[in-house]
Amino acid sequence: MVKVTVWNENRHEQKNPVVRDIYPNGIHGAIAEFLKEDSHEVTTATLDEPKHGLTDEVLDNTEVLVWWGHLAHGEVKDEIVQKVRQRVLDGMGLIVLHSGHFSKIFKTLMGTSCDLKWREADEKERLWVISPSHPIVEGISEYIELEKEEMYGEHFDIPQPDELIFTSWFEGGEVFRSGCTYKRGSGKVFYFRPGHETYPTYHNKDIQRVISNAVKWAAPVKRERPVYGNAKPLEVIQGDKNKKQH
Amino acid sequence: MVKVTVWNENRHEQKNPVVRDIYPNGIHGAIAEFLKEDSHEVTTATLDEPKHGLTDEVLDNTEVLVWWGHLAHGEVKDEIVQKVRQRVLDGMGLIVLHSGHFSKIFKTLMGTSCDLKWREADEKERLWVISPSHPIVEGISEYIELEKEEMYGEHFDIPQPDELIFTSWFEGGEVFRSGCTYKRGSGKVFYFRPGHETYPTYHNKDIQRVISNAVKWAAPVKRERPVYGNAKPLEVIQGDKNKKQH
Amino acid sequence: MVKVTVWNENRHEQKNPVVRDIYPNGIHGAIAEFLKEDSHEVTTATLDEPKHGLTDEVLDNTEVLVWWGHLAHGEVKDEIVQKVRQRVLDGMGLIVLHSGHFSKIFKTLMGTSCDLKWREADEKERLWVISPSHPIVEGISEYIELEKEEMYGEHFDIPQPDELIFTSWFEGGEVFRSGCTYKRGSGKVFYFRPGHETYPTYHNKDIQRVISNAVKWAAPVKRERPVYGNAKPLEVIQGDKNKKQH
Amino acid sequence: MVKVTVWNENRHEQKNPVVRDIYPNGIHGAIAEFLKEDSHEVTTATLDEPKHGLTDEVLDNTEVLVWWGHLAHGEVKDEIVQKVRQRVLDGMGLIVLHSGHFSKIFKTLMGTSCDLKWREADEKERLWVISPSHPIVEGISEYIELEKEEMYGEHFDIPQPDELIFTSWFEGGEVFRSGCTYKRGSGKVFYFRPGHETYPTYHNKDIQRVISNAVKWAAPVKRERPVYGNAKPLEVIQGDKNKKQH
Repeated sequence: MVKVTVWNENRHEQKNPVVRDIYPNGIHGAIAEFLKEDSHEVTTATLDEPKHGLTDEVLDNTEVLVWWGHLAHGEVKDEIVQKVRQRVLDGMGLIVLHSGHFSKIFKTLMGTSCDLKWREADEKERLWVISPSHPIVEGISEYIELEKEEMYGEHFDIPQPDELIFTSWFEGGEVFRSGCTYKRGSGKVFYFRPGHETYPTYHNKDIQRVISNAVKWAAPVKRERPVYGNAKPLEVIQGDKNKKQH
Repeated sequence: MVKVTVWNENRHEQKNPVVRDIYPNGIHGAIAEFLKEDSHEVTTATLDEPKHGLTDEVLDNTEVLVWWGHLAHGEVKDEIVQKVRQRVLDGMGLIVLHSGHFSKIFKTLMGTSCDLKWREADEKERLWVISPSHPIVEGISEYIELEKEEMYGEHFDIPQPDELIFTSWFEGGEVFRSGCTYKRGSGKVFYFRPGHETYPTYHNKDIQRVISNAVKWAAPVKRERPVYGNAKPLEVIQGDKNKKQH
Repeated sequence: MVKVTVWNENRHEQKNPVVRDIYPNGIHGAIAEFLKEDSHEVTTATLDEPKHGLTDEVLDNTEVLVWWGHLAHGEVKDEIVQKVRQRVLDGMGLIVLHSGHFSKIFKTLMGTSCDLKWREADEKERLWVISPSHPIVEGISEYIELEKEEMYGEHFDIPQPDELIFTSWFEGGEVFRSGCTYKRGSGKVFYFRPGHETYPTYHNKDIQRVISNAVKWAAPVKRERPVYGNAKPLEVIQGDKNKKQH
Repeated sequence: MVKVTVWNENRHEQKNPVVRDIYPNGIHGAIAEFLKEDSHEVTTATLDEPKHGLTDEVLDNTEVLVWWGHLAHGEVKDEIVQKVRQRVLDGMGLIVLHSGHFSKIFKTLMGTSCDLKWREADEKERLWVISPSHPIVEGISEYIELEKEEMYGEHFDIPQPDELIFTSWFEGGEVFRSGCTYKRGSGKVFYFRPGHETYPTYHNKDIQRVISNAVKWAAPVKRERPVYGNAKPLEVIQGDKNKKQH
């Protein structure tokens, strides 16, 4: 059981009836629901709440943060982004979904542009499992097939993933590293590609299973954060100019 | 032959006669000199020049940028940092030396705090070669020994390196990942630990060899940068809603 | 709770009273004991049992195999090594300890010589945590200190680890990648350096904790093994010479 | 200029007129030709020569070995495989092409089954560049398109590559990690997927460029191989039982 906060921009749901029909409780509501069914302790937070719903108290009580954003990356306050980043470095897990590749929090943790090719054309995506021993693919077959999704294509401008979990095949001729893990500080990050707002992707049982597996994988490890800064020697140094003379 | 710009904060040299004695032409001068001897085309740039010596023209003509900074990371203008970052993503190599671990450019490309343990105690450092087939260690023996250096110790808060080239042993009891490579966008980054300003580290022939090897390794690959953004399909998509009807 | 088999060569214990005094129930007995205390379901197996104690039934019921060997790597039958290897590729976890770096099973899974520097000189080892977010270091401080151990030094001729968890500092001047993870097929492998037979290393609480953590980490993921071999197309191929004509 | 030996099984060429028409001088002849044009010093060797053409003298004079095999992996003598493996660990580069994924030399260096999905159906392959800063893709566009090739599909049972250079899209719905680098000992290995014998793949200019780039990348680094085995301490050890008493 992991303490999860599902963050969603929650703007498409307000503007677009297609999205609202698919996700009547918002994308965050849909994700929260299946994570609860999997026994996680889940709350949600959205852009238009004060502090985007990510107060210090919320963040301090979050073990894994799930992030969906698209239209309004620029409206997320830098101050909040810095707090989330610090929590990741301090051990909180972060799961970035789909268009979250362009979120401030993902870009700042990656250091690259996180740019990619994209296309909305109702095309088939097939996510192939590349890392069969990884806990994120527990219960998942050789591939996950999504009848219609937005295309994301290589080159995806990310650092080399620590682990490549999925690679997508797209009907229109592209491939994409669609499941990638990273360690940052004392925290773990998983990027997972699928989830365009106009498709019922988060109702797919395999997609739900991957996200739930990822929540468990990304949960913080219980230990003290490393100590940084000036350090006394653990051994005698022959020429140490700071040593006291006797 | 690579077009190199050696950037140096050049402040210790102004303030501290010990440093000036070791590096009468500045740390940048010493590095430029041995790189020239190795047939590279080398210029230098320093913090107190207009635009820190890194005008668009200079950056556009730089294939590999070497970076030394320590006291004045905060004085480097964000605008210049962003230009350097963009050049790296566009293919320019970047070699970050010693206390440059805390430079804005390194931190922004890594996404982590880049913090570490440190100590100034005139202690011995021994850099062991971990990756014997890497071009950066051409001509280097099993280890490089430096009689006196500043200590940097783990945990070093960096992303997992793409390649770990050196690990340091320190007399006082610590270890450190002291040579690390990263790819970022179309560019390559090498972090190399040694080089505290009060020691003659950059006069050491092995250290010089590593930096010169790294310059060759980091030189840009000649190809077009990837195209990002909206992309037409390369194959026919069955259900494409955008397809023209015939 | 994981089904663990602890395999030990169990020869030093027969020959050397020093070892027998430290490990009256054998190294396998000591390891089995603390793993049981941590609620794992543990059995042991040793070289001189029929089939080295690794019958098909035992292997089929093993989720994680722990391996300690030193004097008699050559006596381990190739047929058994191949069965263990196949079980790893099929998902069984493998934890290779100390001198097991030269075991047939580790060398065959790595593909390299797995050679290293070594020295027996009662010297201090300090294992620094390099990967603070990894479940293998849960509950472990910044480093583990062992007053006396055998030295293993770089270069360690292994493939680049998927994850580097520990790096050791040795009193005599060397460093070593002393905790390394690898994925092989559907299985996970962890190499952990400490444990020379003449020192009470496996009575150290931190060392016990690492091994117990590693058992949990290495446990198989529940899913079907990938299907290999000839595959029918999932999509229509325009020029397929095998397609039936209509 | 690199000293290259191109090794080919050279059996399809004897049996199948389709292959002979495409490669009148054998696959080895075709590869040797374009590598010579790129100024490398090239010789060839084939299975049916004494010692498969890989005498000690040939191997000692080879900086990079290119390997193509398919029908007769089992006929390659283990003794020769061990010599090639040792040369790789000692620094020789190895480029394994296409069906060489199942060669003894590749499997022994990888440690896994190297199994995959496959299909011969005259289908389109598109190799996308994943690592834009790598010297192996110098001069290569975003992707290489091959009108007809054999399909290889994931899961490909290899260790996680040190660097993933290409990922293939196949018309029939699969993806594949089609360009992978590995370091083994003091040597470098590149696996490159394309090149089924019944297609003119090695006449494709982009494919030729990749192989020629890989030859340069895989060339040995000039340095002494690491020393392994028993090692004297580099520092004084307090409790060293072997120390002479004064």
